[in-house]
Amino acid sequence: LQDIKGGVTAAKGFQAAGVPCGIKQSGKKDLALLWSERPCSVAALFTSNRVAAAPIVVSRNHTSSGKARAIVANSGNANACTGKQGLSDAITMAQITGKELAVDPHEIVVASTGIIGVPLPMQKVGSGIGAAVAALSVNGSRDAAEAIRTTDTTQKEIAVEMTIGGRLASLGGIAKGAGMIAPNMATMLAFLTTDAEIEPSILKQCLAEAVESSFNAITVDGDMSTNDMVVLLSNGASGVRLSGTSDTEAFQEALNYLCRELAKMIVKDGEGATKFIEIQVNKAGSESAAKKIALTVANSNLVKTAFFGEDANWGRIMAAIGNAGVVIDNDRIDILFGEEKIVESGQGIVFCIDTVNEILKAPEMTLQINLNAGDARAKIWTTDLSYEYVKINAHYRT
Amino acid sequence: LQDIKGGVTAAKGFQAAGVPCGIKQSGKKDLALLWSERPCSVAALFTSNRVAAAPIVVSRNHTSSGKARAIVANSGNANACTGKQGLSDAITMAQITGKELAVDPHEIVVASTGIIGVPLPMQKVGSGIGAAVAALSVNGSRDAAEAIRTTDTTQKEIAVEMTIGGRLASLGGIAKGAGMIAPNMATMLAFLTTDAEIEPSILKQCLAEAVESSFNAITVDGDMSTNDMVVLLSNGASGVRLSGTSDTEAFQEALNYLCRELAKMIVKDGEGATKFIEIQVNKAGSESAAKKIALTVANSNLVKTAFFGEDANWGRIMAAIGNAGVVIDNDRIDILFGEEKIVESGQGIVFCIDTVNEILKAPEMTLQINLNAGDARAKIWTTDLSYEYVKINAHYRT
Repeated sequence: LQDIKGGVTAAKGFQAAGVPCGIKQSGKKDLALLWSERPCSVAALFTSNRVAAAPIVVSRNHTSSGKARAIVANSGNANACTGKQGLSDAITMAQITGKELAVDPHEIVVASTGIIGVPLPMQKVGSGIGAAVAALSVNGSRDAAEAIRTTDTTQKEIAVEMTIGGRLASLGGIAKGAGMIAPNMATMLAFLTTDAEIEPSILKQCLAEAVESSFNAITVDGDMSTNDMVVLLSNGASGVRLSGTSDTEAFQEALNYLCRELAKMIVKDGEGATKFIEIQVNKAGSESAAKKIALTVANSNLVKTAFFGEDANWGRIMAAIGNAGVVIDNDRIDILFGEEKIVESGQGIVFCIDTVNEILKAPEMTLQINLNAGDARAKIWTTDLSYEYVKINAHYRT
Repeated sequence: LQDIKGGVTAAKGFQAAGVPCGIKQSGKKDLALLWSERPCSVAALFTSNRVAAAPIVVSRNHTSSGKARAIVANSGNANACTGKQGLSDAITMAQITGKELAVDPHEIVVASTGIIGVPLPMQKVGSGIGAAVAALSVNGSRDAAEAIRTTDTTQKEIAVEMTIGGRLASLGGIAKGAGMIAPNMATMLAFLTTDAEIEPSILKQCLAEAVESSFNAITVDGDMSTNDMVVLLSNGASGVRLSGTSDTEAFQEALNYLCRELAKMIVKDGEGATKFIEIQVNKAGSESAAKKIALTVANSNLVKTAFFGEDANWGRIMAAIGNAGVVIDNDRIDILFGEEKIVESGQGIVFCIDTVNEILKAPEMTLQINLNAGDARAKIWTTDLSYEYVKINAHYRT
């Protein structure tokens, strides 16, 4: 497994573009297009928010056949809570894109991200799609990654090369995140491409597995958005075809890596984040118990503000653990910051304050919670809660 | 039902005191004592946090008989995550208090609030109890209310006079709150007293009902603490005895009012709160669905920061509704700020921006969410999320 350049267009036969079409008042890029020269298998996962945006409804439908050819996405407007008009606009986005690319509109995946409740400016979107089609390029990943940004401070792209059956295939992706990041498809978009040939049912299975320990294991603020999706296209342009378990395992390993790296980028660029925190809950009675506890700790504002304040306030961590709705024996809990034990058998112990301060001041840290109740474990990536988070979200207006 | 002065000592036969014993470095009052001259019935509710503090364990035991005589509480130290020593210290607090008051120690309720994980300085606590016993007074409510404060900016006390069977009885209380406020007994203490004579089983039932729509209907940050309790003492000193349904109803009405008012005081004094927000979820399919949605909206950092920013960002409210894990038909949802409708049938509508800005700038506002799916409803009181919340919690150190 080797990192390579090229993001979502690293895999053969994929082209991308990102253009400004005028949705964002800043004039920044806000329309992204991703196209495969050949037919693709597709797997996709969508937000579990009950208030699903129009593009979610349309794309769920369009990916159900297991075939797709292109993804069109705009930023600056979520096309959510926009009623029948919104649904019609999302369908129109697919139709315009299909017409421009000479592809069946049912094979177009549609995505939107941005402000909720404002109708899409369809004239701008339409001319943006035309410009994006004209700009499609095998070097277009970065532009596409920029065009899906909202409050993200950086574009997020990655690609790897893997060996399958002795031959090389590529896998790449772009993503956006920032705020409203919570498990089960938080406010995030991720578009992934591979030139390996993989049938839809396997593709779907691989994607579900990869997402569980990546995009479903991150939280910035516990808020899950109306527009999230992860889409994986496979076009077979490398001539490499997945056949048999070991091929699938090789691809799965690459996909897991790719999704985890993109998920980490999203958390690190979380709104106002000053720290990246990996929360490990180990030796739990079950994986679901471990994940519940990790998430409750990760989403506790009191824990998050303590990390922002670089305070070894383990009492708040204990309180959050007790709050997860899981039966625990608190006299068995150990807590470690990095490798330094802070709590043993549910009680604070003497620790090296210099070591702990160094850990707390670092941009990345690991928090280990050992329940000593079994063999299961879970891992969640999250951020602290800063003044900047409040500032960004108090003033990100319609 | 008439508001009267006197807080937790308004009811006849109760005395209280609050003294500084040196737990708080500031030298402020940190030990509260509440005593009934006569035997009492007692009802109590405790935190559902699985990491229960030592005083919770002891007081759950001490109130199980339905009889109590006094409450001793310290602030500045939670006596939580303190292991066997903590448990022994909480028992010792009851023993010292019992001895000083010549009361069976099993009839002493023990409470603590403050920093987690630090052993109680028992010498200070012991001498504080002695000083508090000496200071007991029928005018001691305010001192006791002060002595249970942590980050509260004001003391919280209230009392009412009610008519039961044509005769007057009193009911009063004190409380502390501030942060870590979430339903099911958040970080809060509330001590309530009445001079009506009520048997333990009725008292318990009345308390449970009153708490459900007051202390269990508030949230500041979704974090529930290790130390919360609500204790209600009834000593019969007024000579008024509850007999029959109409008496119970009259008492219930007074108790509901008292608990609601104390709960509101706690939310209004929430850490960093600049606004008091009443979230009503109406026309829901079930009360539990309505409460889940109200809580999810109340605990959404994106919604809270939008209110802090005085931004009519209803999209975040819709997203939070969709996040509550409740099946909803989002095309039926109406949202109102005060009496001004913002969202109709799931979509934004034209509204008077001046009216809405006035509502958003006021210190108190009502958010109505009408699901149009049934007859059930729920109400939650909460606050916004401000810079000050982050500041307080990033810097409230051990």
